[in-house]
Amino acid sequence: MAVAATVATIGEYVGQEVTLKGWIHTKREKGKIAFIVLRDGTGFIQVVLEQDRISPNEWEELREASLESSVIVRGLVKAEPRAPGGYEIQGLFFKAFHVTKDWPLGRKDHGVDFLMDNRHLWIRSRRQSAILRIRHTIETAMIEFLNKNGFYRFDAPIITAAACEGTTTLFEVDYHGDKAYLSQSGQLYAEAGALALGKVYTFGPAFRAEKSKTRRHLLEFWMIEPEAAWFEYEDNIQFQEQFVSYIVNAVLERNADDLKILDRPLEPLMRVKPPFPRITYTEAVELLGKNGFNVHWGDDLGAPEETFLSNYFDKPVFLTHFPAKIKAFYMQPDPENPEVVLAADLLAPEGYGEIIGGSQRIHDYELLRQKIREFGLKEEDYQWYLDLRRYGSVPHSGFGIGLERTVAWICKLEHIREAVPFPRMLHKLTP
Amino acid sequence: MAVAATVATIGEYVGQEVTLKGWIHTKREKGKIAFIVLRDGTGFIQVVLEQDRISPNEWEELREASLESSVIVRGLVKAEPRAPGGYEIQGLFFKAFHVTKDWPLGRKDHGVDFLMDNRHLWIRSRRQSAILRIRHTIETAMIEFLNKNGFYRFDAPIITAAACEGTTTLFEVDYHGDKAYLSQSGQLYAEAGALALGKVYTFGPAFRAEKSKTRRHLLEFWMIEPEAAWFEYEDNIQFQEQFVSYIVNAVLERNADDLKILDRPLEPLMRVKPPFPRITYTEAVELLGKNGFNVHWGDDLGAPEETFLSNYFDKPVFLTHFPAKIKAFYMQPDPENPEVVLAADLLAPEGYGEIIGGSQRIHDYELLRQKIREFGLKEEDYQWYLDLRRYGSVPHSGFGIGLERTVAWICKLEHIREAVPFPRMLHKLTP
Repeated sequence: MAVAATVATIGEYVGQEVTLKGWIHTKREKGKIAFIVLRDGTGFIQVVLEQDRISPNEWEELREASLESSVIVRGLVKAEPRAPGGYEIQGLFFKAFHVTKDWPLGRKDHGVDFLMDNRHLWIRSRRQSAILRIRHTIETAMIEFLNKNGFYRFDAPIITAAACEGTTTLFEVDYHGDKAYLSQSGQLYAEAGALALGKVYTFGPAFRAEKSKTRRHLLEFWMIEPEAAWFEYEDNIQFQEQFVSYIVNAVLERNADDLKILDRPLEPLMRVKPPFPRITYTEAVELLGKNGFNVHWGDDLGAPEETFLSNYFDKPVFLTHFPAKIKAFYMQPDPENPEVVLAADLLAPEGYGEIIGGSQRIHDYELLRQKIREFGLKEEDYQWYLDLRRYGSVPHSGFGIGLERTVAWICKLEHIREAVPFPRMLHKLTP
Repeated sequence: MAVAATVATIGEYVGQEVTLKGWIHTKREKGKIAFIVLRDGTGFIQVVLEQDRISPNEWEELREASLESSVIVRGLVKAEPRAPGGYEIQGLFFKAFHVTKDWPLGRKDHGVDFLMDNRHLWIRSRRQSAILRIRHTIETAMIEFLNKNGFYRFDAPIITAAACEGTTTLFEVDYHGDKAYLSQSGQLYAEAGALALGKVYTFGPAFRAEKSKTRRHLLEFWMIEPEAAWFEYEDNIQFQEQFVSYIVNAVLERNADDLKILDRPLEPLMRVKPPFPRITYTEAVELLGKNGFNVHWGDDLGAPEETFLSNYFDKPVFLTHFPAKIKAFYMQPDPENPEVVLAADLLAPEGYGEIIGGSQRIHDYELLRQKIREFGLKEEDYQWYLDLRRYGSVPHSGFGIGLERTVAWICKLEHIREAVPFPRMLHKLTP
């Protein structure tokens, strides 16, 4: 009896007969031998089928089966060092379940608009499926690490009454007559969660109705937001170092074949180990000035500045102690210099820029009220958030990591649209 | 040196000095002894503080510290069989970080509207925090089981152009001038994912703009939707049995204290082991008729009928082979009787009703086109979905499990609003 196997675990079956169910990724015939690269979702493997070893019917089916036909193959697993994954199947049985006619993505030179319109098919390609398997590992590793460290998952609501950060980029929803918005961040809710459960994280979609079209922005993206009570600035930074290193290491260990498919250089990833370098905002402004950027203390750093800093270091780097005015109202001022806040963004290396934004949060009731007023926000919108400082307030910190930006960096993608199964961008709503 | 510990892991430190950071859940004084129940998010533990063993300052702080004050305690861990968790702390040091004044939830008889308006504080209570810790275990166990079984996480988009099931209960979003909707299900996208990656699951929020107010409905809820290629009706059923049993068992193993807080009878949960009973829709209609229900073949079964069936069995039960007309267009007809479909809902026991809906999907292109027309849907809205049957189609199946309904059942809640941190219901949008 042949065992039902998958490409990902094929190494366990060397010398045995297995059944594989999948799709024809490529096919090449050479007289009485056919070479198929079969994909089954978990990976790609070469199957060698000789006319003399299968029935005439099977050979006929094989000849007719074109790219992306769904097929069932039985065969012997052989170690084959020259094969991409290290194994090969010597075919003993072939059956086409459904023969595909005119596979639309057969050419190599499709434009990106065409590929995006066929995203539901494009994800079957070698490169796109490798990215999505790596995305799975990143998501899994994030959850593993947070759970191991005693964090409880705490799902924040998506439809919300008030804005968390800014109001110009909100998607509006008609909530049975009430005006509501799609969440831009679960953080304020996560803070309530941290005071109830100690350490929590959200893991959900976030929305920004940005009008810009860049290679780093999606209108709908996924964000993971850990938040912990009795957790201060330095705890937060060190936790992020461990967290990001764990994720990168998980991909290196579990997705070696996928990284190879992407031609992703491994050295920059192998360097991702704590501690990460740190640079204050003030030092960064100075460094940028010396390198020809026209930035002044108090300016928000834009994409070119971020890219420069991200390329300047060969590891992820923390950019810290921003001017309070250019950051969110809830960030804890630095006791040594209240003009800056105990916040840090983590910039990925290789030019990828910000993947994490985090800070210690203000835990003093009066100070938070004052900041709400200073930032021109309405105190009545934040009554429940202020309650967290009225009742049993504690020092607490947290951060948000953008999933797609992390995927884009680890996979070294040119555009963030490939980091998610079905990207949502300006005027891109289907499929 | 005292070790930083949490209540959940306190058993590891018997005989040692630990530091705990948390909040005063209850306090009782008896002359020169004070008894605190401390909560730290991971659980509750009694701390006994004697006036003679701490400094006068500490004793004063302790006397002033009222409910929900945030505190730091150092003490010796003792096994104490009479204590709820089995352990107790003999206090050696006490410090109040922030003294709470007038904790609003101190009374026992608050109405539900008041509690819901203070949801951000209510989640700190013994019962609500226990539910949220169990929710965390359920989510974690779902992910564990799917990952172990070779499923890849595959996030479906939330903002979509077309409706998946029905159009009357959609939340509309203005997408930069285009009309868009919040997703009711990621299934159609998961099908594309299954044909790319073999086995996938979505894990995200879903939205139904229902006008009804029931104890079983939320407008925003979380759904997990596994979908697998080369997976047929029977595979799907058996996988669900294993999946649900794994989740229930994880809660029994990991949340014994929380189940005790909820007074949740354990026997019904301990019975949740494969196989689950099955009853066809046709048999169910007959059984309901014999028990005084006025239902006819072809009727949709409502909440009272579901509750009856759910109480009739002492385990989760599969309700199978529904009339095609009352189910979704994409469900595979039964080859032995095409009037019914290869679909099954899983009803939780104890009157909780449907927690899972699943089916084998139609994989034949022409049959799916015909069904789209029969159901009065527009073929042009489903072009990409039809593509999945044009190119390398395979038999495939999947299901969707409602997270909050599963939490409500396992915790034996009276109302689903307690199964999620911040419920969204009709006219309930804050906090």
